[in-house]
Amino acid sequence: MQTWRLDLSWDGRGYLGWQRQPQGPTVQQAVEEALARVLAEPARVDASGRTDAGVHALHQVAAFRTAVVRTPRGLVGGLNHHLPRDIACLDAQVAPEGFDPRRWTRGKLYRYRVLVRRPRCPFRQGLTWHLGQALDVDAMARAAAAFPGTHDFSSFQAQGCSAEHPVRRLASARVLRHEDEVWLELEGHGFLRHQVRIMAGTLVEVGLGRQPEGWPAQVLAARDRTRAGPTLPAEGLWLVRVDCPMTPRPGHLAAGEDDPDPGDT
Amino acid sequence: MQTWRLDLSWDGRGYLGWQRQPQGPTVQQAVEEALARVLAEPARVDASGRTDAGVHALHQVAAFRTAVVRTPRGLVGGLNHHLPRDIACLDAQVAPEGFDPRRWTRGKLYRYRVLVRRPRCPFRQGLTWHLGQALDVDAMARAAAAFPGTHDFSSFQAQGCSAEHPVRRLASARVLRHEDEVWLELEGHGFLRHQVRIMAGTLVEVGLGRQPEGWPAQVLAARDRTRAGPTLPAEGLWLVRVDCPMTPRPGHLAAGEDDPDPGDT
Repeated sequence: MQTWRLDLSWDGRGYLGWQRQPQGPTVQQAVEEALARVLAEPARVDASGRTDAGVHALHQVAAFRTAVVRTPRGLVGGLNHHLPRDIACLDAQVAPEGFDPRRWTRGKLYRYRVLVRRPRCPFRQGLTWHLGQALDVDAMARAAAAFPGTHDFSSFQAQGCSAEHPVRRLASARVLRHEDEVWLELEGHGFLRHQVRIMAGTLVEVGLGRQPEGWPAQVLAARDRTRAGPTLPAEGLWLVRVDCPMTPRPGHLAAGEDDPDPGDT
Repeated sequence: MQTWRLDLSWDGRGYLGWQRQPQGPTVQQAVEEALARVLAEPARVDASGRTDAGVHALHQVAAFRTAVVRTPRGLVGGLNHHLPRDIACLDAQVAPEGFDPRRWTRGKLYRYRVLVRRPRCPFRQGLTWHLGQALDVDAMARAAAAFPGTHDFSSFQAQGCSAEHPVRRLASARVLRHEDEVWLELEGHGFLRHQVRIMAGTLVEVGLGRQPEGWPAQVLAARDRTRAGPTLPAEGLWLVRVDCPMTPRPGHLAAGEDDPDPGDT
């Protein structure tokens, strides 16, 4: 048996997120079906974490095990041949024994994209959240400075989040102008369910002048979901990069320890 | 009667180009149908030029005439309400009497986008031409320096082009790296049919090392379509900007004079 690493990317518009669902198509299901065709045997593929319906991935890391022998190039080509066009396999490589994207991942970068120009854009329907008005990006950036660090993020946790506790370490929080969009970029090891979308919704309140710059820090300290801004739509959320080295880090989580990423974003 | 100017944008994947066709949906038809709903009368909309099936527009200028009274804001809102989601009205304004986008346009910027990374991109299917291998951008840029100026562009003219003569003035030709894409940007007053796509196909031959840097200049001088590279697919072609001021330029073409833009790109 060999363990393989897959680097994937997908347009989330057609999927109910990563994880298999009885209700409709998911990315995991599509990848497993394509892989089963390539290997000519049933396949089980696990990713570094789940993503919600409609969320996009520029980069996700996944893994599977098989005794079937394939070259990396053959595997990438075969997968892309069988995958739907809105999912791409970027790379495939043999991984060390025990490779587990969920436990070996050291960090993830999420981006929330807000389209601020008034007219809609034909090319970004479902790929950005269309606000249609200007935001005070400098005020949002100053407000976001309260987020990095190890905190109890209960205020930014969706109801029904399966995390065992609400403490996470956020490595960075940046608010950027990018042409006619405003981006919130959050980097961290693990995220609570809807954390990025609720943080974005909270910062947008500041950007619209409805709340002062100091308000997000107060929301964080309150540890109360009802104090934060709204959960913004999934369509603006992008998993940009998963930092998952092929060597386990010292002290990485063993199977059964608390899952750093219980349902994402 | 008032003449109105419309600034439009569309994703060309679902359309047989701008101009009405019996065989299928076009952008002109979609805009005219939406406008007829807004005005509650039949509408005729003319653009600065045609675009081919599958070609995208970040910006196109069009015009129509009506006696129905509307505010610019009401017109934009009404059009975007009735238009399909892959077409957007960016702006509407009352234009001077006689405003004619085809004749008043001073220049257009076209971009041909080549995706050079090996794996496909789920977000750019049909929006770029996927070559999947590296190009020598510097060699292409040096080769493209032969194109600007007033030339007989017969070598880069599709069969069946309706232009009365093949002489055009090309203001600039740039080849740029943009992340994992290579862009050919051509600016000029008018273009021959498939001109941008054939020029891009010619420069790609240089970028792949199949032809020397001096070859595109020889192709231009030959005035012979069979000497040039292939016509690249429409999906990579974008109309980026139409420079159409609301004042006629001195010596602008009168109706009936040679059409600078007989079928584009």
